[in-house]
Amino acid sequence: MSAIQQHPTLTAEKLSVHPPKRLLFGPGPTQVHPRVYEVMAQPVVGHLDPYFFEISQANQRMLRHVFGTENEWTFVISATGSGGMETAITNFVEPGMKVAVFANGFFCDRMSEMARRNGAEVVRFEKPWGEAFDDTEAAEFIHREKPRVVMYVTAETSTGVYQRGEAICQAAHEVGALVIADCVTSLGAMPVHIDKTDIDIAYSCTQKGLSCPPGLSPVTVSPRAAEWLQARKSANRSWYFDIKLISDYLLVSHRYHHTASATLFYALHEGLSLIEEEGLAHRWERHRQAHCEFVKGIGDLGLTMLVPEEYRIWNLNTPRVPEGVDDAKVRAALLNDHGIEIAGGFGPLAGKVFRIGVMGPLATRDHVQDFLSKFADALRAAGYKS
Amino acid sequence: MSAIQQHPTLTAEKLSVHPPKRLLFGPGPTQVHPRVYEVMAQPVVGHLDPYFFEISQANQRMLRHVFGTENEWTFVISATGSGGMETAITNFVEPGMKVAVFANGFFCDRMSEMARRNGAEVVRFEKPWGEAFDDTEAAEFIHREKPRVVMYVTAETSTGVYQRGEAICQAAHEVGALVIADCVTSLGAMPVHIDKTDIDIAYSCTQKGLSCPPGLSPVTVSPRAAEWLQARKSANRSWYFDIKLISDYLLVSHRYHHTASATLFYALHEGLSLIEEEGLAHRWERHRQAHCEFVKGIGDLGLTMLVPEEYRIWNLNTPRVPEGVDDAKVRAALLNDHGIEIAGGFGPLAGKVFRIGVMGPLATRDHVQDFLSKFADALRAAGYKS
Repeated sequence: MSAIQQHPTLTAEKLSVHPPKRLLFGPGPTQVHPRVYEVMAQPVVGHLDPYFFEISQANQRMLRHVFGTENEWTFVISATGSGGMETAITNFVEPGMKVAVFANGFFCDRMSEMARRNGAEVVRFEKPWGEAFDDTEAAEFIHREKPRVVMYVTAETSTGVYQRGEAICQAAHEVGALVIADCVTSLGAMPVHIDKTDIDIAYSCTQKGLSCPPGLSPVTVSPRAAEWLQARKSANRSWYFDIKLISDYLLVSHRYHHTASATLFYALHEGLSLIEEEGLAHRWERHRQAHCEFVKGIGDLGLTMLVPEEYRIWNLNTPRVPEGVDDAKVRAALLNDHGIEIAGGFGPLAGKVFRIGVMGPLATRDHVQDFLSKFADALRAAGYKS
Repeated sequence: MSAIQQHPTLTAEKLSVHPPKRLLFGPGPTQVHPRVYEVMAQPVVGHLDPYFFEISQANQRMLRHVFGTENEWTFVISATGSGGMETAITNFVEPGMKVAVFANGFFCDRMSEMARRNGAEVVRFEKPWGEAFDDTEAAEFIHREKPRVVMYVTAETSTGVYQRGEAICQAAHEVGALVIADCVTSLGAMPVHIDKTDIDIAYSCTQKGLSCPPGLSPVTVSPRAAEWLQARKSANRSWYFDIKLISDYLLVSHRYHHTASATLFYALHEGLSLIEEEGLAHRWERHRQAHCEFVKGIGDLGLTMLVPEEYRIWNLNTPRVPEGVDDAKVRAALLNDHGIEIAGGFGPLAGKVFRIGVMGPLATRDHVQDFLSKFADALRAAGYKS
């Protein structure tokens, strides 16, 4: 042991990580609640420990509430939100299957790409970024194409557009299709009524509306979709994202599938507990009010919103970049002078909008007012004259 | 705001998570160093924040050292170790390709299953669980089968067997095949010489030898394999695990791929910094000495090891369950009386071996002695008379 003893190390005096303190007003990752940080320091237990399954089951129960569902298959995937998207698609899209995508933003394109990689024939109803689909045209598209799976994004993070799902789900079920809905940005911040809307498969992330660090993806699967999956003949191409294996591990046999991270499960448990304490309806209302406050302030600054009022996501705002202003300069000023992160537009919206998240602990009147005053400074520093 | 103000919540007084304190002497997850818990409380930054890439690049540099490689493509996947396995296979195994697997344990079977799901023709060299492959028979198998990809497990967690890779890699390259090596249990605890062994693709996890919580999977890819991948014609079926996209995000353009978890990147940074402080060679030697200490103690108790001395993994021991002893009783006594987690055997080794991890902060003489005395108690409580 002498070689080791000559190297006394492992002292706790100096950590290697010293991140700047940011206020995360971007589309994500978003501000983490202090209590969530605290639980991550709790000791790891094994992925087969009775306590692990206690936490996991409590998470499932609370996730059902936040998702607005009674789906038995409601649990988390050990990957980020995009891993949830891949889980939905790799389980429910078979090679040769016709898949219809409502395509009005970046994440619809990502869904299309994943469906194609899974061998699907993808048909797309395309609209300019920033627009939503109305009920009639959505239903007509589905009745015309008669797909096996329909995919849409409830809250499109690239544009700020909220998409209603009732007409989509009804038409899809009329033609015998399953519906996959992306709830990455909506879950925990604005209403997500999985059962009432009749969505079959939904996925989200642990940051954004749930105020935890990234790392897990909550998913929920309707009994109709679960039945389809049990009857599926072709092998799922993914083993890691195979819902049959994961649901068996987490819900049924508790047999080892992968080494789920107790630390991230604790974080999610605390994030969901905070929602239960606040009350889900109150949380939504808090986000709606912060959104109204934000939009009013944007108007006072002389800026306009990209998305019409009725289609706006509450927790992700896309004000237009004013004429003659370089959005990169505004973002740099916010980050460097105030430690505030926001995002710019990209794709067709590059340079045209800001993407500003107001969610979780930051969705309060005080935080919005504080943000708006620094945003106004940053705009003026970039040459904006209102 | 009145509805919200009537619900003052978010007080920090009561966390929702109160896990039991375990000593994790199982195969994983393993004991996390206290400093790693501390850094996870540091504030999240965005996945495109300059500081995030600073941490990510430092992790890459330290991972190259621990892997023993100069591979440019050395980074982490946002999934657990099994996600690293799926990354290796989905990128480097094409439909119709012949894949050779050295099959002497559970994780070789998992590799085979993933390769089949990716459309490969899998040929297996099978041995009973607990045995290793010698150089001559390994080379003969590869020369006979002439596969395009060869897969083996460096440290098979289900059996405690360490597999030498030099002859496998040499033969594989003689027939023009790439080599995928599972380093989930070996990395950070015993020598993993990627370049010297001439392994093309390797993956691991952040728990086990790196003493962090689960959640990320370090991977490394040789220039030879990177070149093959750049020339690959068929689309990778997985978007989430697509190394071309992930390497572009983490190493080249820093363009958004997925929302990587700053929290887990911090944890890995601290885990790797602890290794740098201790010195990699010293860390290996500490694990080797703890292993010797453990094996001596097992002998003193009258138990024998499943694996011959030359093939033993240092940080994962598989002593045989003594005749007439119910291993489940021993494990339950350790967990319930002492808060110590170990694991049993499964598959062909169910009821026949214990699987006892001695790694990270627990790989010291004191911890081993303490464990052995409690293990002896638990054995006696289960009726063992030495």
